Amino acid sequence: MHALELGRAFTLLEPGPVVLVTTHDGHRPNVMTISWTMVVDFTPKFAITTGAWNHSFAALRETRECVIAVPAADQLDLVVGIGTCSGADTDKFAKFGLATRPGRFVKAPLVPACLANVECRVIDLIARHDIVILEGVAAYMDIARKEKRMLHAVGDGSFIADGRKFDRKVQMASKLPALS
Amino acid sequence: MHALELGRAFTLLEPGPVVLVTTHDGHRPNVMTISWTMVVDFTPKFAITTGAWNHSFAALRETRECVIAVPAADQLDLVVGIGTCSGADTDKFAKFGLATRPGRFVKAPLVPACLANVECRVIDLIARHDIVILEGVAAYMDIARKEKRMLHAVGDGSFIADGRKFDRKVQMASKLPALS
Repeated sequence: MHALELGRAFTLLEPGPVVLVTTHDGHRPNVMTISWTMVVDFTPKFAITTGAWNHSFAALRETRECVIAVPAADQLDLVVGIGTCSGADTDKFAKFGLATRPGRFVKAPLVPACLANVECRVIDLIARHDIVILEGVAAYMDIARKEKRMLHAVGDGSFIADGRKFDRKVQMASKLPALS
Repeated sequence: MHALELGRAFTLLEPGPVVLVTTHDGHRPNVMTISWTMVVDFTPKFAITTGAWNHSFAALRETRECVIAVPAADQLDLVVGIGTCSGADTDKFAKFGLATRPGRFVKAPLVPACLANVECRVIDLIARHDIVILEGVAAYMDIARKEKRMLHAVGDGSFIADGRKFDRKVQMASKLPALS
């Protein structure tokens, strides 16, 4: 995993991929699958929708830390598996043989098998909509990974991998932060 | 455009596509390109991030209505064109030859050239994060449209069309609302 410039980390969530979110409650780590995410600032800040129905939410609220890990298309069954069992009764890292690595700034673990990881701090909770606002504090990318396609949840039990890419960098230049 | 069951409308935004958002300020309609969106409830409710930097925001705040239109991959240059000029000095519907149709519940126009449209009411504004919470009140889908791939903005000026689709409906059944 190579360090990714923080100013580029919003581009990991901007395309709307399904992601894994890890937490650590002080005793053990957990991981959940989340599709309801949004960029809210280039710095980066992200919003995710989650609440008490997810076992991870208590750790997220109490530690105010998490890692967003972006899986690639070859991790579809991991994404589905993690999303359909609960940390309340399952050690998902053991169940899925998922290796972790310590983060630099947060206790929630990185998932090096993923395409990218972002260490995040919780900076706000909007309880009436179950929205958690996160600030990215470090980001990493596996630049050697062959499978680079992200996955998008449709919400009906199907998932779509990234397809063809189109370059409109010249046309979009006025609307985007300068990326080195 | 066929009516789409409201309980299915979240599946239009769950995959994270770039969308068009139309408004009507009482005098004229406007349309903007938005990539920062999130589902917040199946009912459906959506969050979008926008603020005074978008000319449409004043109409959104004052009328508390909009339409989310989901473009398909063959509308990439429309998406980029709409996203890189402003309703402050441009009639974007005239500029891009974009036909509209009246909605049933809101004054913001539908965009029948798009894959899908959702009439929305603003139900909350979270000013400190520039987040607008929307409730979908009617949804439509162009079921005859040949190009069904959505577009995802990367945030660096490139865009990705939907690629291969994977069915995990059986595995995901416990996590999703029953869709007819």
